[in-house]
Amino acid sequence: MSSLHAVIMAGGSGTRFWPASRSARPKQFLPLARGRPLLQAAIDRLEGLCARERTWIVTNAAQARALPTVVPGFPAAQVIVEPEARDTAPCVALATATIAARDPGATIAVLPADHVIEPVDAFQRLLARGSALAADDRTLVTFGIAPTFAATGYGYIECGEPLDQQEPQALRARRFREKPDRATAEQFVAAGTFLWHSGISVGTAAAITAAMAHNAGLAAAAARMLAACQRQDRDAVTRAFLRAPKTSIDFAVMEQASQVAVVRAALRWDDVGSFRAIETIGEHDGAGNAALLAGGAGVLACQAAHNIVYAEGARTVALFGVQDLVVVAVGDAVLVCPRERAADLKTLVEHVKASGRTDLL
Amino acid sequence: MSSLHAVIMAGGSGTRFWPASRSARPKQFLPLARGRPLLQAAIDRLEGLCARERTWIVTNAAQARALPTVVPGFPAAQVIVEPEARDTAPCVALATATIAARDPGATIAVLPADHVIEPVDAFQRLLARGSALAADDRTLVTFGIAPTFAATGYGYIECGEPLDQQEPQALRARRFREKPDRATAEQFVAAGTFLWHSGISVGTAAAITAAMAHNAGLAAAAARMLAACQRQDRDAVTRAFLRAPKTSIDFAVMEQASQVAVVRAALRWDDVGSFRAIETIGEHDGAGNAALLAGGAGVLACQAAHNIVYAEGARTVALFGVQDLVVVAVGDAVLVCPRERAADLKTLVEHVKASGRTDLL
Repeated sequence: MSSLHAVIMAGGSGTRFWPASRSARPKQFLPLARGRPLLQAAIDRLEGLCARERTWIVTNAAQARALPTVVPGFPAAQVIVEPEARDTAPCVALATATIAARDPGATIAVLPADHVIEPVDAFQRLLARGSALAADDRTLVTFGIAPTFAATGYGYIECGEPLDQQEPQALRARRFREKPDRATAEQFVAAGTFLWHSGISVGTAAAITAAMAHNAGLAAAAARMLAACQRQDRDAVTRAFLRAPKTSIDFAVMEQASQVAVVRAALRWDDVGSFRAIETIGEHDGAGNAALLAGGAGVLACQAAHNIVYAEGARTVALFGVQDLVVVAVGDAVLVCPRERAADLKTLVEHVKASGRTDLL
Repeated sequence: MSSLHAVIMAGGSGTRFWPASRSARPKQFLPLARGRPLLQAAIDRLEGLCARERTWIVTNAAQARALPTVVPGFPAAQVIVEPEARDTAPCVALATATIAARDPGATIAVLPADHVIEPVDAFQRLLARGSALAADDRTLVTFGIAPTFAATGYGYIECGEPLDQQEPQALRARRFREKPDRATAEQFVAAGTFLWHSGISVGTAAAITAAMAHNAGLAAAAARMLAACQRQDRDAVTRAFLRAPKTSIDFAVMEQASQVAVVRAALRWDDVGSFRAIETIGEHDGAGNAALLAGGAGVLACQAAHNIVYAEGARTVALFGVQDLVVVAVGDAVLVCPRERAADLKTLVEHVKASGRTDLL
């Protein structure tokens, strides 16, 4: 069996977590994994399944410089730096080229850095099974989460028949579906054949490269990156990367591939898309308040219900007589907004920018 | 003319400003006077009218220890320490005894430490006029603020005829009225003969002492305090103070006196009773948000209206899509509550106490 490499994609910025997230402190650096940075949790989740020298982080230059303080001990040699942000397809091509140049027979799992996935042992069993499937069948394998509610914020995968009657959790992927409206999401959940698209996928280096053929520009850039990696010409890698089309791995590769398998996962999974994720991943009190606290922060709720609190550092957030708010308290900033506006924080960030307060971003 | 002494009463705690105010940091220490502590503003307001060696602060032992950091340069010799909190009548008796022992002919103005009064020149003219009246007529003089709305949170003074037709702003006080209900307050304002009770009064030491005769216990304690001060026996002063009845100067003295004059003041005055005072004393934006900021704090409001912000230190309070909230941000605590609950913060403070978080009080 080919060896498993894991590529953690950690390039995002996450304005929807402002003021906790900043340009120099993206969402994956926030202690959203029960006090640990999401990125640290993503690394820890691979412990024992994927050797450290086969675990990779792909990120931008600024975040790469910050990694020693966020994920201390993670080897610098395992960090792949993107020359610029060009969405996920060039990112995966770069990682695949870097790995394939050393280990042409590699199986590569691509994982977002900024999701919450529990429990770890179930996750590892699934990833091991998906990797074996990818290596054996030379197909791309993605992971679908059994939906627990009619989410409108996630993409869905429509599943077909099992690949093998002996293993009903491994299915043929029929179609990828964008974030649906409420009614469609309800149909999806009722149908029972739709899974949430986890953003995690695995394939051999050869299968990933082959699947890029659907996008000629991407395939050419990927081939150039591989050749440049093989001769260790970093400038040539950079040039090839910068010529790759700005597109996502899902759109350019996964959704175009003729054969994609889905491994069905009944995991606690959350893409931590906004502060509302704290309703799922945070701690709850008896009044429906949910909190995610780090660094000694506390909450005092009095006649207050259904609020969401994110706080860091030695501070107490007191809620008195309020409902359905998001309250964020970090060192130099406090945010108060209604719960239903939490997913719309980009509007506020635009306002901050327009106010000339780029120092706060 | 007898010399004017000013006694600033600074013993209060102000739980209605939690978490900005704490047991060791009462309301009068907060930078509510355009960035200055209210107590500092109270001292500064007397500058030029009342010499520093005749300006006194009466407070408790803990606050007295903190004064050098809050009002640096204020002479320790001018601080009168109350042996315990026994409301304002024993406090005034102690201050009167302390002053009269040195300066038997003194005229003494008693002023709360925690009000906002502007402008200073008008205040000084009034206090000078009231002091002259008190010295000349040997009567107690209080100051009444021309009401600008039907406040239910203030006491009122019902006024009678002018003392002198040449001076229509100096009136006979007919009656003190407790905080009225809305309808009564509206009647008071419509009548035009009612003024807000500012809590500021002035009288000669002899007149103040004489007026205490209405309360035998208070009069006896005051006489003992004066005698003890005259022979500089601090223990005897303390013993006398501790035997004084726990009552207010308004109830025990002002409201009982047969002859009290009121000087009518058209000042900007606010007793800063809760965070709602920031609507009056704070800075406003175009959306009806009011803020009181100190130490580099800032506010960013986006689609937010009619909120009240109090913030200290290098932090930004971002309001996004919220209305009618009070948001307080200080070093180790954040408070969010509806505007209409601002006057009810004692309930929250009780909750904090009951939660065992006395470290936050």
